[in-house]
Amino acid sequence: MDTVSETANDSKLSVRYYGEKTESLGDAVLHLTAVEISLDVDADRDGVVEKNNPNKGSWKWGPNGHGAVLLVNCDSETTYKKTLDSEVDEINKVSGDTLLNLFLLPEHKLLKLFLKDYIMVVGTDTLTEEVPYLGGKTELAFFVEGLRFPDKDFDGLVTINLSLLEPCGKGFPETPIFTDTVVFHISPWIMTPNTLKPVEVYVCSTNDNYTFLKSIKNLVDKCGYKLKICYEYMNRGDRWMQDELEFGYIDSPHHQFPVVLDSPRDGDLQDFPYESILGPDFGYVTRNALNEKVSSLDSFGNLEVSPPVTVNGKSYPLGRIIIGVAATRGRNMTQVVQDFLWAQKVQEPIALYSDWLVVGHVDEFMTFVPAPDRKKFRLLLASPDAGYKVFKSLQKKGHGEAEMFPGLPEVISVNEILSDKKLQAENRYVQNCIDWNRDVLKKELGLDDEDIIDLPILFKVLEEKTGPRAVAYYPDMVNMIVLGDQLGIPKPFGPKVNGRCALETEVRSLLEPLGLKCTFIDDFAPYHKLLGEVHCGSNVLRERSPFRWWNLEL
Amino acid sequence: MDTVSETANDSKLSVRYYGEKTESLGDAVLHLTAVEISLDVDADRDGVVEKNNPNKGSWKWGPNGHGAVLLVNCDSETTYKKTLDSEVDEINKVSGDTLLNLFLLPEHKLLKLFLKDYIMVVGTDTLTEEVPYLGGKTELAFFVEGLRFPDKDFDGLVTINLSLLEPCGKGFPETPIFTDTVVFHISPWIMTPNTLKPVEVYVCSTNDNYTFLKSIKNLVDKCGYKLKICYEYMNRGDRWMQDELEFGYIDSPHHQFPVVLDSPRDGDLQDFPYESILGPDFGYVTRNALNEKVSSLDSFGNLEVSPPVTVNGKSYPLGRIIIGVAATRGRNMTQVVQDFLWAQKVQEPIALYSDWLVVGHVDEFMTFVPAPDRKKFRLLLASPDAGYKVFKSLQKKGHGEAEMFPGLPEVISVNEILSDKKLQAENRYVQNCIDWNRDVLKKELGLDDEDIIDLPILFKVLEEKTGPRAVAYYPDMVNMIVLGDQLGIPKPFGPKVNGRCALETEVRSLLEPLGLKCTFIDDFAPYHKLLGEVHCGSNVLRERSPFRWWNLEL
Repeated sequence: MDTVSETANDSKLSVRYYGEKTESLGDAVLHLTAVEISLDVDADRDGVVEKNNPNKGSWKWGPNGHGAVLLVNCDSETTYKKTLDSEVDEINKVSGDTLLNLFLLPEHKLLKLFLKDYIMVVGTDTLTEEVPYLGGKTELAFFVEGLRFPDKDFDGLVTINLSLLEPCGKGFPETPIFTDTVVFHISPWIMTPNTLKPVEVYVCSTNDNYTFLKSIKNLVDKCGYKLKICYEYMNRGDRWMQDELEFGYIDSPHHQFPVVLDSPRDGDLQDFPYESILGPDFGYVTRNALNEKVSSLDSFGNLEVSPPVTVNGKSYPLGRIIIGVAATRGRNMTQVVQDFLWAQKVQEPIALYSDWLVVGHVDEFMTFVPAPDRKKFRLLLASPDAGYKVFKSLQKKGHGEAEMFPGLPEVISVNEILSDKKLQAENRYVQNCIDWNRDVLKKELGLDDEDIIDLPILFKVLEEKTGPRAVAYYPDMVNMIVLGDQLGIPKPFGPKVNGRCALETEVRSLLEPLGLKCTFIDDFAPYHKLLGEVHCGSNVLRERSPFRWWNLEL
Repeated sequence: MDTVSETANDSKLSVRYYGEKTESLGDAVLHLTAVEISLDVDADRDGVVEKNNPNKGSWKWGPNGHGAVLLVNCDSETTYKKTLDSEVDEINKVSGDTLLNLFLLPEHKLLKLFLKDYIMVVGTDTLTEEVPYLGGKTELAFFVEGLRFPDKDFDGLVTINLSLLEPCGKGFPETPIFTDTVVFHISPWIMTPNTLKPVEVYVCSTNDNYTFLKSIKNLVDKCGYKLKICYEYMNRGDRWMQDELEFGYIDSPHHQFPVVLDSPRDGDLQDFPYESILGPDFGYVTRNALNEKVSSLDSFGNLEVSPPVTVNGKSYPLGRIIIGVAATRGRNMTQVVQDFLWAQKVQEPIALYSDWLVVGHVDEFMTFVPAPDRKKFRLLLASPDAGYKVFKSLQKKGHGEAEMFPGLPEVISVNEILSDKKLQAENRYVQNCIDWNRDVLKKELGLDDEDIIDLPILFKVLEEKTGPRAVAYYPDMVNMIVLGDQLGIPKPFGPKVNGRCALETEVRSLLEPLGLKCTFIDDFAPYHKLLGEVHCGSNVLRERSPFRWWNLEL
């Protein structure tokens, strides 16, 4: 039979046979019903559901791979009234006949499957359901949504089976006579490096940061991006926009949208990601620490991502996630968040050593800026050695009496700084800590020394309850906001030479040859004095990478 | 410096410089200490720890892969007094110098690391430890053992870091100045298909199975394998040796041993695997159901493994695990055991439909036997159609009065069997259930019809509380024991023609052309009547596969 039956037994086959007993010819008619079912998805990843793709039942990474992609429906209908998203994230069809049975194996709570009118068919509670008979060549459209992101205990793959059941007569259960299977991979949550184009800059308004806010607004306006201000009724004085959340996105061939990862930090900004960011086509995900203590290392100033790199022939086209932990024992990022980040797989994380800092965030000693040459970026590292080099050079050139922190109560001369043996010892310690991280970054990102720029930054060491830990001595210029080729850098208040800040001059001389434009922003009172800077106080929503995650060769 | 220092500052570098202030030449001496540390493992998988393998810090599958292999230390010192195994499962060395710090990231409870004298260095409780200073070029030998098998929440990879710490002066913590990293993959638990060479056959002795036991002993003696009898003081009348346990093994380049997987079934045989099988170089692992009900589908007659297959170009050189579940809703193998099996990764499981049977085990309708041709094996399937074909042929040839179950109270003629419409309907239903499994097996194992042999077996359907379910009508010949080319097959008690059992004759005609030798074993009273057969009542420990799991391309 080459066509599907319209009604049961609508085809006939005449059989002429030789009767065994009567030894004469006989005639018989065989009634036939042809049924074709197929559960269809976009297994070739072109955004369109195709008919009966031979690879729909398995999933393979890479440009020559196959298998459908599913999004977690983690956005909401509206920004202010959070309800189930009734927008369709994925359409999959089944050409159906009577007695179909849909079931999920072997996991549940991973996806929901809806019929057109949003009556749930299979999902959290029901793992199997019969679907209505349509007959003939009709199609049944299903809507599918993911319920969970890949995590330590879930590799992201979900399977749906559709069985054609045949009645076996009275007293017997129906038996499956054909089963079709489709596999989805749920999109991982993907971070966006500084080299991707910004869309919107987020910053807090507090009762003491008017000037800072104005500087940020000027910079963002100049670049032509949007600025989103979180006001005090929402931030309750918590200005650390970088620390409460991390922007990322989820991606499929047919749809993609940004998703905010809410930190377990939960400062006074804790309601902001859910209340103000989650909305239509803007998803939300969080991880809550179970029996662990949340520490400062859980703030997302301690969660960054590199630009695309290739390391020993292995390519990371979406970059690598970077977090800070204790080198041996000490504070750490909570395990649930680390597990979540590792489980996304497409931006294999690197663990740096950040616990030597009072605040303990990787963004206190490193960032990435775009560059026209080499690997298309530079790694910027805070460097006490580079700092001392600048101060010694000033002294040598006769500017020993020039004053750091001009106009501020902390004013101190270059000579005084250089004669402070305690400060020198502290900075030797800090340089050691950064050097270890430098080695790890070189190895894990495949960098040469020429890919790294050392910014002149001194630290000081405070005696904390749990031991000595470091903070920036003057505004920590590496803690900058990167908006394309425009950099918003903490104003360092360095010694003035010929009316110009020697530290700004040095940093400009390092970055401007790369085509970067430096704007120094005064964050001294409202951020630096509270142990943070421009980057800690801002966040940037960026465009997604042009590279699609399913094309990775894993 | 091209050699490691014996003592601190034992190398000097003379520096002649131009004094800035005195404008004269000066001399200075720089004292140098060269330290080289490396944490070494067998990353090239040849059974020998090599020096500083460049790939030791990562793990890659395949014959061109790399990365060390670790065994879970799941065997015990003695069979009767279970203690920590003090045999060394793995030796890894570190060429050490002062101030070394060993630590694990980011997981714990995955491995233990010992020093030579078995003082634990890092492991379950302590994640970081300083190791003693040895100085110069000495080596420190560590002993490593895995603590957990790969599972749903553990991918099997464990990392050990070794850091060289530098003192930074009074008041500062030591800082890591170099960190070496090694990665291990813990060996998965691997099952052995019927095509692997037997080592030892396990069977129970009960108060009613003397004749059966003697038949098994004769067969095993003839083949030259060992027989292990579990006596009644241990089995307490539970004769289902197949169901309480599954034999497998773990493998590394330097060592391997069998490991018994203990079923959560826990019948009266439940102490046998731990008390009698666990011992020196014989490991033990189990999974306990958490909040799930253990059903008959948790017995390991419902857990089998195929011989090596290639499916659509994808090769499974260790075969594929086969389990039975409900097709839609019904009884299932517990999730913890399913999770464990899937997590081993190297024998990707196939889920068949076995819940249509009263007992619900895949070994009631399928097995594999070795063959000299084609894929080097045949899949044997129970087939009511093939059964009816034999009986109809007997009737046609005038043997309609020949009697099934000769000499037994159940005696019934061929004509009577063929006229039983109810039995026919039941067997149509059973054939439907088996056909669905046949389709799945063909697809998932890449089989053609020529790779499958249908054995003539009829079933009958019992009305259970939860609906109708099937049992074998006469001894289920597919439930056989496979010992190389020798098959121990349940004696079917078929109708006699010319003094020979017609069912035995038919099965011989199907299997003997493959070089297989059939011994029919009477299991009627002590096994068949209790809904099991030869396979259910026995178990076979087999040699490991010549294929090493780390050579898989995953």
